[in-house]
Amino acid sequence: MADKLWQKDYPLDQRIADFTVGRDRELDLELAPFDILGSIAHVTMLQEVGLIDGAAARRCNAKLRELYSRTLDGSFVIEDGVEDVHSQVELLLTRALGDDGKKIHSGRSRNDQVLVDLRLYFRHRIQGIVEQTADLSRTLTELSEEHKDKLIPGYTHLQIAMVSSFGLWFGAYGEALIDDLRLWKAAFDTVDQNPLGSAAGYGSSFPLDRDRTTELLGFREPVINVVAAQMGRGKTELTVAFAIAGLAQTIGKMAMDVCLYSSQNFGFLQLPDDLTTGSSIMPHKKNPDVFELLRGRCNLLQTLPAQMSQLTGNLPSGYHRDFQLLKEAIFPALDQLEDGLAIARYALPRTRVRAQELPTDPRYTYLYSVEAVNKLVLEGVPFRDAYVRVGKDIEAGTFEPPTELQHTHLGSLGDLGNERIGAKRQAVMDSFDFGRVDQATEDLLLP
Amino acid sequence: MADKLWQKDYPLDQRIADFTVGRDRELDLELAPFDILGSIAHVTMLQEVGLIDGAAARRCNAKLRELYSRTLDGSFVIEDGVEDVHSQVELLLTRALGDDGKKIHSGRSRNDQVLVDLRLYFRHRIQGIVEQTADLSRTLTELSEEHKDKLIPGYTHLQIAMVSSFGLWFGAYGEALIDDLRLWKAAFDTVDQNPLGSAAGYGSSFPLDRDRTTELLGFREPVINVVAAQMGRGKTELTVAFAIAGLAQTIGKMAMDVCLYSSQNFGFLQLPDDLTTGSSIMPHKKNPDVFELLRGRCNLLQTLPAQMSQLTGNLPSGYHRDFQLLKEAIFPALDQLEDGLAIARYALPRTRVRAQELPTDPRYTYLYSVEAVNKLVLEGVPFRDAYVRVGKDIEAGTFEPPTELQHTHLGSLGDLGNERIGAKRQAVMDSFDFGRVDQATEDLLLP
Amino acid sequence: MADKLWQKDYPLDQRIADFTVGRDRELDLELAPFDILGSIAHVTMLQEVGLIDGAAARRCNAKLRELYSRTLDGSFVIEDGVEDVHSQVELLLTRALGDDGKKIHSGRSRNDQVLVDLRLYFRHRIQGIVEQTADLSRTLTELSEEHKDKLIPGYTHLQIAMVSSFGLWFGAYGEALIDDLRLWKAAFDTVDQNPLGSAAGYGSSFPLDRDRTTELLGFREPVINVVAAQMGRGKTELTVAFAIAGLAQTIGKMAMDVCLYSSQNFGFLQLPDDLTTGSSIMPHKKNPDVFELLRGRCNLLQTLPAQMSQLTGNLPSGYHRDFQLLKEAIFPALDQLEDGLAIARYALPRTRVRAQELPTDPRYTYLYSVEAVNKLVLEGVPFRDAYVRVGKDIEAGTFEPPTELQHTHLGSLGDLGNERIGAKRQAVMDSFDFGRVDQATEDLLLP
Amino acid sequence: MADKLWQKDYPLDQRIADFTVGRDRELDLELAPFDILGSIAHVTMLQEVGLIDGAAARRCNAKLRELYSRTLDGSFVIEDGVEDVHSQVELLLTRALGDDGKKIHSGRSRNDQVLVDLRLYFRHRIQGIVEQTADLSRTLTELSEEHKDKLIPGYTHLQIAMVSSFGLWFGAYGEALIDDLRLWKAAFDTVDQNPLGSAAGYGSSFPLDRDRTTELLGFREPVINVVAAQMGRGKTELTVAFAIAGLAQTIGKMAMDVCLYSSQNFGFLQLPDDLTTGSSIMPHKKNPDVFELLRGRCNLLQTLPAQMSQLTGNLPSGYHRDFQLLKEAIFPALDQLEDGLAIARYALPRTRVRAQELPTDPRYTYLYSVEAVNKLVLEGVPFRDAYVRVGKDIEAGTFEPPTELQHTHLGSLGDLGNERIGAKRQAVMDSFDFGRVDQATEDLLLP
Repeated sequence: MADKLWQKDYPLDQRIADFTVGRDRELDLELAPFDILGSIAHVTMLQEVGLIDGAAARRCNAKLRELYSRTLDGSFVIEDGVEDVHSQVELLLTRALGDDGKKIHSGRSRNDQVLVDLRLYFRHRIQGIVEQTADLSRTLTELSEEHKDKLIPGYTHLQIAMVSSFGLWFGAYGEALIDDLRLWKAAFDTVDQNPLGSAAGYGSSFPLDRDRTTELLGFREPVINVVAAQMGRGKTELTVAFAIAGLAQTIGKMAMDVCLYSSQNFGFLQLPDDLTTGSSIMPHKKNPDVFELLRGRCNLLQTLPAQMSQLTGNLPSGYHRDFQLLKEAIFPALDQLEDGLAIARYALPRTRVRAQELPTDPRYTYLYSVEAVNKLVLEGVPFRDAYVRVGKDIEAGTFEPPTELQHTHLGSLGDLGNERIGAKRQAVMDSFDFGRVDQATEDLLLP
Repeated sequence: MADKLWQKDYPLDQRIADFTVGRDRELDLELAPFDILGSIAHVTMLQEVGLIDGAAARRCNAKLRELYSRTLDGSFVIEDGVEDVHSQVELLLTRALGDDGKKIHSGRSRNDQVLVDLRLYFRHRIQGIVEQTADLSRTLTELSEEHKDKLIPGYTHLQIAMVSSFGLWFGAYGEALIDDLRLWKAAFDTVDQNPLGSAAGYGSSFPLDRDRTTELLGFREPVINVVAAQMGRGKTELTVAFAIAGLAQTIGKMAMDVCLYSSQNFGFLQLPDDLTTGSSIMPHKKNPDVFELLRGRCNLLQTLPAQMSQLTGNLPSGYHRDFQLLKEAIFPALDQLEDGLAIARYALPRTRVRAQELPTDPRYTYLYSVEAVNKLVLEGVPFRDAYVRVGKDIEAGTFEPPTELQHTHLGSLGDLGNERIGAKRQAVMDSFDFGRVDQATEDLLLP
Repeated sequence: MADKLWQKDYPLDQRIADFTVGRDRELDLELAPFDILGSIAHVTMLQEVGLIDGAAARRCNAKLRELYSRTLDGSFVIEDGVEDVHSQVELLLTRALGDDGKKIHSGRSRNDQVLVDLRLYFRHRIQGIVEQTADLSRTLTELSEEHKDKLIPGYTHLQIAMVSSFGLWFGAYGEALIDDLRLWKAAFDTVDQNPLGSAAGYGSSFPLDRDRTTELLGFREPVINVVAAQMGRGKTELTVAFAIAGLAQTIGKMAMDVCLYSSQNFGFLQLPDDLTTGSSIMPHKKNPDVFELLRGRCNLLQTLPAQMSQLTGNLPSGYHRDFQLLKEAIFPALDQLEDGLAIARYALPRTRVRAQELPTDPRYTYLYSVEAVNKLVLEGVPFRDAYVRVGKDIEAGTFEPPTELQHTHLGSLGDLGNERIGAKRQAVMDSFDFGRVDQATEDLLLP
Repeated sequence: MADKLWQKDYPLDQRIADFTVGRDRELDLELAPFDILGSIAHVTMLQEVGLIDGAAARRCNAKLRELYSRTLDGSFVIEDGVEDVHSQVELLLTRALGDDGKKIHSGRSRNDQVLVDLRLYFRHRIQGIVEQTADLSRTLTELSEEHKDKLIPGYTHLQIAMVSSFGLWFGAYGEALIDDLRLWKAAFDTVDQNPLGSAAGYGSSFPLDRDRTTELLGFREPVINVVAAQMGRGKTELTVAFAIAGLAQTIGKMAMDVCLYSSQNFGFLQLPDDLTTGSSIMPHKKNPDVFELLRGRCNLLQTLPAQMSQLTGNLPSGYHRDFQLLKEAIFPALDQLEDGLAIARYALPRTRVRAQELPTDPRYTYLYSVEAVNKLVLEGVPFRDAYVRVGKDIEAGTFEPPTELQHTHLGSLGDLGNERIGAKRQAVMDSFDFGRVDQATEDLLLP
């Protein structure tokens, strides 16, 4: 019977365990290298302030560096029955080193451990996405230059409005992405602060040196107040979600344009065959599924802030287990965004760009009406009077489009300003201090 | 009959007009001073590139400065039958100056006019909110210092966890607000770019000097590509909405804490009578309505990004009239946020703070369990073993809380780090370049 | 200076009062008639169970009926300094009747008063919207019949797919609206339960007859448990928000179709001049602003459930002042939805419908490819083989579209099934029991 | 190096394939039995209208019934390289039956195939969730009866307000769930209509008998208009999402209450040990993680409507590939909701309920203030005067709580009305016509 299909007959205590753990073990694997980096810094600091002796610290860190390399080659796993990545690391340490392994939890809690893991993880993912976004922006600027002479109609209200070009269209998205990077900068600056030492959110009676772990982990500065460090949970994710949603808005709009311009009713773009799919009943179909899915994906990504806000809204300060679900929403989003960036960068240069015969296509004649008005203005007619005169020609059917375009100002058809857009992009990229981060990671891993 | 109540018997064409105009005339009044500033800059540039003669430009700008002062004293109105602020300004100019007034629309469209108005308006509002947020952050840091010795329980999972204090609690919100400022910085940097010259989104055949209007309006730089300038609509609002929602999350959480801590079951805070309300049937009630409304308001503000995303999602590039509704959602949100900031800053210092007798209240004894564990660790017991030993004492009912707390590290009970938080706040505030903006406005208004 | 513009220099206590009251007095006016109906029923019941004497009850109800008629003619106002509609009604009663007026608050609280007001109000608004939705559905079915022979391309993936018609297009929206009515039925059934007698959410020690007020107010049944009655706040609004959002999705999609089909690149629809607007710089423009605003409005309405959820999420049971803000979000939404329904019903029959020359327009030839496949199938070729054969003709450029269409099954081009759609609509409308509601209101108002 | 971790070095065409297919193959497995039921009905009808001969139809259906049983025992898989469930079924049929297998795609498209699959699937899931919700509601009513004499404070504004009880608290949620069922009824009625025969959304030139497949599949009626059938995609999911979100709101609020009432500051509930978890540093902690995760999960579920709306907003009519992503959002949500229902029903009866000593606990004295007021009213003092008198006693510290409670009206402490709540629940359950659905499935599977 069909109604048996969804019946879960596994035992309820298993079901509760599964409900509680959720996707945690799987998601925690992504955190593993960062958890280990955090532990190396913590152990180093504990030794420096005298809470572990030097030999024990060296043994711990040697083992941790070995585990780190196992997270990279895929041989690090969370064993059955082990609750999370923190427990797994502690277990492996204790197995290898006995009592020494038990000491490293001094002066921290799983709460600040996961906080530091998440901030290191997000910092790393932000770096990757920022670089990919800049790459896509560069690609678009190049396509703008390549196709700068190919005209298309520009629309307002989905009505034909004025002459545009593929130079303008590609170039616009190239520049728009730069503003998206500003949100990533805010996310980076928020994330790039050290929460370690906040323990369960109320600090510790151990004499921790929080500035030292800050330096070791390459953080710009610590989250100072320990309650603030704990409150960063939810806030950090919300800020990253904003950056994701902002970028998704830009890419989603571009994908919508691609889908629309690929329609037979526009015919401005033609996707290569490997980026289209067929129909099960219509033998002629070549559907732009890749861009439709990119558009849909970007729409789902735009709902992330609402997911973060709904999860955390009206929760008083202090840790709540609800926060575990933040990971489940935002980790896959980062992957999906990266996939989207890669696909856009692959697909757009392979897309055939079809310039339009604007003045001779009767659908597009009126694109030139402003040109006609402006010509009169340059001959001395006040703007409003020129506007009325051309309007009357159009009503009467006697309007003749001017044959040449003279757009010369910055950012227009005739002067796309792509070099200045490049400089703007570079200025934003320079504001990220990725070098410090890379250097700190490298130093931590040195034996 | 009740079913007549909602029947709208005004004529349908009036209803359509009302539906189309919406709250535009009212909201446009807020844009009026910025519209005029944009016009002064445009006229100045038109004259410099030779599109209007000097005498006409002078007459226009003198009149515009007069109108500007009328927007400040409240005597500028949008007349009945006039569609929007742009038309009203053009109408008043034409009335006063005849043909000269008609010339100023050369080389721009209502599209880029509203774009520049909105960016100037948002830039101005951001400045106000950023300053108020910094003020609230400072107030909270001061309250943290004032109440640093008053202990309260710290909670995780809403269960009592470890000892906290009002010093930590106030101080945490003081620091958390600094991260909110980072999102406002992203919004400011996004907004602070000049769209003027993009006309209907496809530029103009006039030889506009867009760098000159950029300078005159005190913008950091232009949006270069004209299609990108048009695409900023929706994106700008989304970015501002992110900043609003982020700040609202922090304030909303603080308001939830205040409501909870004011409950008889906590009793940590007592609001002054002028911030509570009574009940119509329970004579004993003193309800924290102000903070409940602040919490609710912050929740609604957190849905703004979803409103912006839903409005703009799947719209292809180019202007759409839907964008008008962005204003209706985001303008009141800015006012509400400012009100909330002002109220929080007023109410918190007036709220009575009630320290708790932690070790002697039987509900709170176990707050000290980690202290007991850590004491053993400092005596040489490995952390995990100390944890087990204290756990057994608790099970057996023989646990005795330690009588003193030794929290000494940065950001803890014993070292709140409020000075460093002050320095962090200042560094973020210094990254805003409000002086340039103020100077440019002042210069534009000089006769 | 512009930076004075937003400075609020009115005194802070006034600002707090304004923040607390919000738009309540304005919104409460909409509740006035329903508040009075609730009071009439309450007084009648109080008299029947012996808590007020007959003469006092008669005086109260006579005065209440007079106030009711004043809510209809617009002469009922909430006076300055009076907090809400409940206080205003009680004040007017007490002024007119002295001690008798003070008695009517026995056995109820403002909490259940506003609950009953809201349920009566929503029930009334639902009735209006349901009837207007059915009207629009009927209009669309009629337009489907009128234009049933006018062919247009049908799209999938925005690619031309198969032949469609205005008969199908209009008819589809006519039928889709019927499903929206099902959500309104759920909202109606949820709302149509009496919360009166729940007092502040924990009932009363008076011997109230809650079944009697249920009957008097024409509710189907009471919310039985008093805590459940209080918990209805937020839930009721969420359910109504779902119904609003569902209907908005359908109308918003239709508006998007209208905007797209009005583009020169489609040219299927042409809006009458009074439903279009011009451009300030392009003399040829006729923009479909009314449908763009309808689309945008419907998008904003689709965010209502998120607003309700965010406001109420994580609030424990019991009343919270946050709930006041529910009104501010949902009351205007009901007006906007009604406006949208009216405008759609006005505009669609006035829109010019332009059938397309499908087989002869080269953009549209392949619309007929499935017809060609099916013809082969009917001649005995297995479907998959026929599909391949027509695909090859298309590749080779030898495809010839069939000249006639034979769509005969239910719901297709050739048999739109509009009569059956009418019957389906009627069945849903019959499930609403509006007659009972109208009758109860009428009875309550009889002297 | 850590920055290799996220680098995807699998080939880009594989990445595009993965991006396009997404989680489709996995989610499609859930659709498999419903896809097969749809095919059996389609084949039966094709044979009846003469489009396949009887022998071929019998062979197809025998094979389909065999595949159906394989979907139940888990041996049905989607093979590598096969795009979706529809292709897999067709492939297996063709392998087994040759040309006969190729015939069954006549008169349908993958578009209406997935539409019918989804409606059958949702109908089935709705049935399961509705039954579980009714079960949970019954459990809550039973707990209400069991604990009806245990008093707790009732709160408004999180301030103690009036006396409540576990009878009221459990009973309230028992009744609230009944309103949630009304939304599921709307979802069921929307879903329970046959889209088969709409093909790619524009019907077919085959003489399909859509009423016959409607009957065979146990649908109440067909979606008549084929374009409406296609438009059901997105709308159907939105309606189901509303039902999910509504139910999640109720359960989420209950979970918040449980978490709050388990706090030491309330102490009303004590979870059994197997439903709590410990802390890594605080040996005393017993955290209510299960209910926190339930609360968090319910919050995420409340964002589903926004996800559906954002995905579909502004998409014109006709199929878009974006719709594939609807499945990915909503399928897991159904599982999560079912898990939540099961866990709530398991955990609540196992939770220790701790009645409070209300009149003797000084925190709770004022709970009785309304009782004191009402007593005066019953002695003849007008309500407003009694209110003032008790208020003065409270101010003066002379208030003495009454020693007994007399709540007798329906739904109050003294008359919970649980039997009537049971009748209300039954009435809603009777409105679902699950018997018809079960019968049709059984008939289809008979050889």
